[in-house]
Amino acid sequence: MPVYAPVDGSRLAGALAEIPPVRDRLGGDAASWRIREVGDGNLNLVFIVEGPAGGVVVKQALPYVRLVGESWPLPLERSWFEYSALVEQARHAPGLTPEVFHFDRAQALIVMEYLSPHVRKGLIRAVEYPRFADDIAIFLAATLFNTSVLAGTAAEHKARVELFAANVALCRITEDLVFTDPYREAPLNRWTRPWLDGQKRAFERDSALKVAAQARKHQFMTGAQALIHGDLHTGSIMLTPQDTRVIDPEFAFVGPIGFDVGAVIGNLLLAFFAQEGHEAAPGARDAYREWILLQAQDVWSGFHERFLALWRQARAGDAYPAGLFASEEDRLTMDKERARFMRVLFEDTLAFAGAKMIRRILGLAHVEDLEAIADPERRARCEAKALRLARDLLVDAKDFSGLADVADAARAIGRG
Amino acid sequence: MPVYAPVDGSRLAGALAEIPPVRDRLGGDAASWRIREVGDGNLNLVFIVEGPAGGVVVKQALPYVRLVGESWPLPLERSWFEYSALVEQARHAPGLTPEVFHFDRAQALIVMEYLSPHVRKGLIRAVEYPRFADDIAIFLAATLFNTSVLAGTAAEHKARVELFAANVALCRITEDLVFTDPYREAPLNRWTRPWLDGQKRAFERDSALKVAAQARKHQFMTGAQALIHGDLHTGSIMLTPQDTRVIDPEFAFVGPIGFDVGAVIGNLLLAFFAQEGHEAAPGARDAYREWILLQAQDVWSGFHERFLALWRQARAGDAYPAGLFASEEDRLTMDKERARFMRVLFEDTLAFAGAKMIRRILGLAHVEDLEAIADPERRARCEAKALRLARDLLVDAKDFSGLADVADAARAIGRG
Repeated sequence: MPVYAPVDGSRLAGALAEIPPVRDRLGGDAASWRIREVGDGNLNLVFIVEGPAGGVVVKQALPYVRLVGESWPLPLERSWFEYSALVEQARHAPGLTPEVFHFDRAQALIVMEYLSPHVRKGLIRAVEYPRFADDIAIFLAATLFNTSVLAGTAAEHKARVELFAANVALCRITEDLVFTDPYREAPLNRWTRPWLDGQKRAFERDSALKVAAQARKHQFMTGAQALIHGDLHTGSIMLTPQDTRVIDPEFAFVGPIGFDVGAVIGNLLLAFFAQEGHEAAPGARDAYREWILLQAQDVWSGFHERFLALWRQARAGDAYPAGLFASEEDRLTMDKERARFMRVLFEDTLAFAGAKMIRRILGLAHVEDLEAIADPERRARCEAKALRLARDLLVDAKDFSGLADVADAARAIGRG
Repeated sequence: MPVYAPVDGSRLAGALAEIPPVRDRLGGDAASWRIREVGDGNLNLVFIVEGPAGGVVVKQALPYVRLVGESWPLPLERSWFEYSALVEQARHAPGLTPEVFHFDRAQALIVMEYLSPHVRKGLIRAVEYPRFADDIAIFLAATLFNTSVLAGTAAEHKARVELFAANVALCRITEDLVFTDPYREAPLNRWTRPWLDGQKRAFERDSALKVAAQARKHQFMTGAQALIHGDLHTGSIMLTPQDTRVIDPEFAFVGPIGFDVGAVIGNLLLAFFAQEGHEAAPGARDAYREWILLQAQDVWSGFHERFLALWRQARAGDAYPAGLFASEEDRLTMDKERARFMRVLFEDTLAFAGAKMIRRILGLAHVEDLEAIADPERRARCEAKALRLARDLLVDAKDFSGLADVADAARAIGRG
């Protein structure tokens, strides 16, 4: 077995030329391929390779957290979980993930489609993406429903649980950085000082908030509902007006469905509150702000509708097997049960959204939507408002009747 | 690797003499050991071997379900899950499981302590066991709490999830026989005909009941809370007045805590309703009937109290980490959260108890408490009452305020 070694950019073309599907994708002669290292994420080496026929991305895990340094080791094996998740997601949501050309487990290396002209951070530049909400709703419903026991057998589910149970280190990052560190003094926490000092301290003393966060952490660790992406912030979504791709599922494991849906909703709400920090004059981004809230509502309603439609059509799920419910009364009772199930998912979604928002403001890893606001006092004003809504979502998810309700709360806090 | 072969009784003594801890346990000369096959369970070969110094049980998995025949294959690997669970349970609840002397994975064979003069079916003979409720409460609290993320790290939990996720076939037996078959026409179902025909048909048409059973099946398949025994009926409990041992955890996997607690409570309630079929004259077993109800209440309250005590003392759990809750308000809020958690566990317990009761009356595998009632009409009267309470527990668990409430409902139905 070859020994792992970080990719040497100067030798990459030669290595890729040996892999027929990659050579075909790039076209022409290896000497003509342009290669650049672009890893702007937190964890990995990323090269873009472009040839006359097309481009690929070479993503290689490093044995430590890039954002922090070699003092924080991280298993290379996460590449295997990312690859396994990409393959499974592509089966359920074709066209919404990058195509994979090659995987090398020993080198922790995935060669996949270079997505161009897709952008990751369009929401900061106030760009509207007409396919965003629909495509993400499809991705969420298809990947989450079809990897649950509502769609498949217990044996398939247990095989998935077994495979991804080994993704311990990446799950631990979420357990610590999302659910625990923001609520205590932890050396890696960052926040906009000194303006948010008071709010940080208040959160550390907020018993109800800490208990709510831990109840969700418990759910994250024990609620084995479906194969979740595990890190579905807007930076994991590549967009053009015509195309949407979900990338980077290295945090994937069998966990609670609401964690993925909540990640999308929570990041949209962060983008909403960030607009105030980006607008040239007060109100200049009102229309875009409203567009963002509409996306949050459309993601939820699109997800809700499609998840239910898949469930109604399902014939092979071991939970609630279709054959058991044949009469008219059975069907009505199942409809009520599905509504109950979706209501629980809705509350899960809001609570996880709140937890994800808080960690992006008081924890280690922040979002560019807010970080790009240069004036720290102005940024802190946006962040303080986001924290207010986030706390309500996490502690009082059950008090919201729907996403419209959440949007109203966001507007009210935004004006305040 | 040696090939699996079912134990040949005539060669067993020679084989056991090669294993030092077994030879020591039995004492004397192998030629003097008395060996008998006693497998009266549903799945395995079981030999009792007695020597001058002591006895052992040799339990070997067969590659099929013994109760049904070779037409229903079942993986030998279940022996590995049983062994792994026995080792883990012994660590948390010392003295409440049989001691293991030897395990042979290739032969799917466990050599363990022969429990004598313990009996399995004392409850049918109206024997009171003074240690029963306390010991079972200790076993439940210790094994379930200590294999949860309330007690340990996420990494330990995921290792357990991974190991036991492969116990697919045994979990599937529960999924089918407990949660689905009793509610449909299935060739293996048995019930006391013709007296229960109407109730069987009514259950097949009972939409609310079927949905409640499936919601619990979903929880069984996705609620990865703790390493559960998975088959904790009274036949898995060996009793003397001074000693209690829990055996046969081959159905073990990481599942919902309430499934184990509910199994005990449900089987006690079956024993309660069976008394009417065993008493020489009406009311002759009133005192014993009450003793059984008291056991159900004591098991729950003992479990509840000990689980909470373990939680309050826990320092190493990754969920609700102790370090996060230091102030007086934190402690009060955590106490409320623990009470909420235990209330959910209580409802889980009742619902799973109801599901287990129903499957023992309308499904494949029955309990001797009821089967031993020779007159089928009299048996059916007991069973019909048990089914009434079981349905209430499964559909309306949330309407019961405590086990005393359940005991009252059992008495009312018993008199009816």
